[in-house]
Amino acid sequence: MKGEVFYGKGMQYIKEDNPDLYEALVELNEVVYNGKSLDYKTQKLIAIGIAASKSDELATQKQMKSSIEELDTTKDEIMDVLRVVLLTSGAPAFNQGVRILKSL
Amino acid sequence: MKGEVFYGKGMQYIKEDNPDLYEALVELNEVVYNGKSLDYKTQKLIAIGIAASKSDELATQKQMKSSIEELDTTKDEIMDVLRVVLLTSGAPAFNQGVRILKSL
Amino acid sequence: MKGEVFYGKGMQYIKEDNPDLYEALVELNEVVYNGKSLDYKTQKLIAIGIAASKSDELATQKQMKSSIEELDTTKDEIMDVLRVVLLTSGAPAFNQGVRILKSL
Amino acid sequence: MKGEVFYGKGMQYIKEDNPDLYEALVELNEVVYNGKSLDYKTQKLIAIGIAASKSDELATQKQMKSSIEELDTTKDEIMDVLRVVLLTSGAPAFNQGVRILKSL
Amino acid sequence: MKGEVFYGKGMQYIKEDNPDLYEALVELNEVVYNGKSLDYKTQKLIAIGIAASKSDELATQKQMKSSIEELDTTKDEIMDVLRVVLLTSGAPAFNQGVRILKSL
Amino acid sequence: MKGEVFYGKGMQYIKEDNPDLYEALVELNEVVYNGKSLDYKTQKLIAIGIAASKSDELATQKQMKSSIEELDTTKDEIMDVLRVVLLTSGAPAFNQGVRILKSL
Repeated sequence: MKGEVFYGKGMQYIKEDNPDLYEALVELNEVVYNGKSLDYKTQKLIAIGIAASKSDELATQKQMKSSIEELDTTKDEIMDVLRVVLLTSGAPAFNQGVRILKSL
Repeated sequence: MKGEVFYGKGMQYIKEDNPDLYEALVELNEVVYNGKSLDYKTQKLIAIGIAASKSDELATQKQMKSSIEELDTTKDEIMDVLRVVLLTSGAPAFNQGVRILKSL
Repeated sequence: MKGEVFYGKGMQYIKEDNPDLYEALVELNEVVYNGKSLDYKTQKLIAIGIAASKSDELATQKQMKSSIEELDTTKDEIMDVLRVVLLTSGAPAFNQGVRILKSL
Repeated sequence: MKGEVFYGKGMQYIKEDNPDLYEALVELNEVVYNGKSLDYKTQKLIAIGIAASKSDELATQKQMKSSIEELDTTKDEIMDVLRVVLLTSGAPAFNQGVRILKSL
Repeated sequence: MKGEVFYGKGMQYIKEDNPDLYEALVELNEVVYNGKSLDYKTQKLIAIGIAASKSDELATQKQMKSSIEELDTTKDEIMDVLRVVLLTSGAPAFNQGVRILKSL
Repeated sequence: MKGEVFYGKGMQYIKEDNPDLYEALVELNEVVYNGKSLDYKTQKLIAIGIAASKSDELATQKQMKSSIEELDTTKDEIMDVLRVVLLTSGAPAFNQGVRILKSL
């Protein structure tokens, strides 16, 4: 499955106890990351930007990590995402993003 | 100048009364949108995603509009950005983005 | 369909041009509002609280309106939701919620 | 006192050094959680939804914990709150909520 | 009453139908704006910064307006608040703040 | 340099690998904290208020710490900032701010 952004220990729990919700989420995830025009890698860069702009540490880390591992996204590419975060969301969100990127 | 996101009536006011701030902002804008690896169009798609994920109506509209006019970004491409907004930020932010896209 | 929160002009556009996304969203909406334990009315009150806590004017209005019309939610019940918004999210979010409630 | 949401080490500090503020907060808390129509348990479910929709880890944990301990709220009920969080605020906020719920 | 930030049509409604809540809010407002060390004007500048950093148009406008009218805050002082908004919260929040300031 | 808010390990990384961005950020920082009317200390109090209102733990801690160390800001002054955070952004953001303040 593409974009396993929301995968983790929590999903196992949902799969067992809330299979209807699990299936709807998997379906949504598939559909979201199979758009008409943009490739998966570009969509993941957008997801990194959104997570970082919210200063969401865990989501940012997961998005960066899966982008690098699955899609060979480079640190320079992610840094260019963080440039946009700086302009649109300010220095604290940017700084957290840089710190996470460095730690990977 | 690239990425005139923050351009508008307000900027004229800043230019006249706060020239130091104006110059720093223009400089930052130039630097942000001249990254090492990603092209300007991809960075603008990221900026659209960030604005839409915050339900920031005016910023979303300006980003979508300048992307379409300056960079020939298609509505299908923006729709693929909004798919990521739906998954990461929920249906209300997505719906507002779709409404703005349709109105352009 | 329950919880037509994300219904509106935008959805027609999605249905026609992005049927895969439309179906996934309808499916998710159905699943979300058919939980195991809480009834639909309680879930809608929660949705009102979330929308109001984000100061999301349009979403708050839509959620309040559909709750009142579909589920006979009273203004006193919504006011009790807004009390929680005041404590958890501050006076500006609360005030906007009160203003929207009054206008319905 | 109902809804000791804001209780903790910090409150002791406020009580001693800022008694005026402490009293106003206790008063507000009492009033908020003694609405006209909704019972305390429903209001707490709304508070969980708001905290989780903001990805506020500590507040979400405190709200879930006090709901379960004081009001016998079940994990299934909280999961139904998180369903609304998923639809209105996206997968990262939902996932964090599920993770916190599981850990309790 | 100091800091009538949350005053407006909505408050009349609360006063009549929810007098307990009205009194608690008035009390909180009084206590908040009567701190130990900072004067009222400085606290209002902080309130402007917070409202603008959230891109909350209505709250920003009300805070700026009451600061100028009640406390003789100058537009240059508010512009210095917006400088901090730019650095901490990004260009879109800053631009909206400048636009509102100009319109007053 | 004033307002080393965004200083830390991350900045060293930016300085080496993205010198253009580093310089633009340093320039912006200088300009932001050298306004026309407000002194640096007042601007830092505003920055504390903004960080705390977003429940941004790390940024709040850094802002409080540098204010106390560089500018002899007192804990009572910061507490008066947090009063405004309580009114405008709710009890959870306020509580986190109080906890951070106490820990310094």
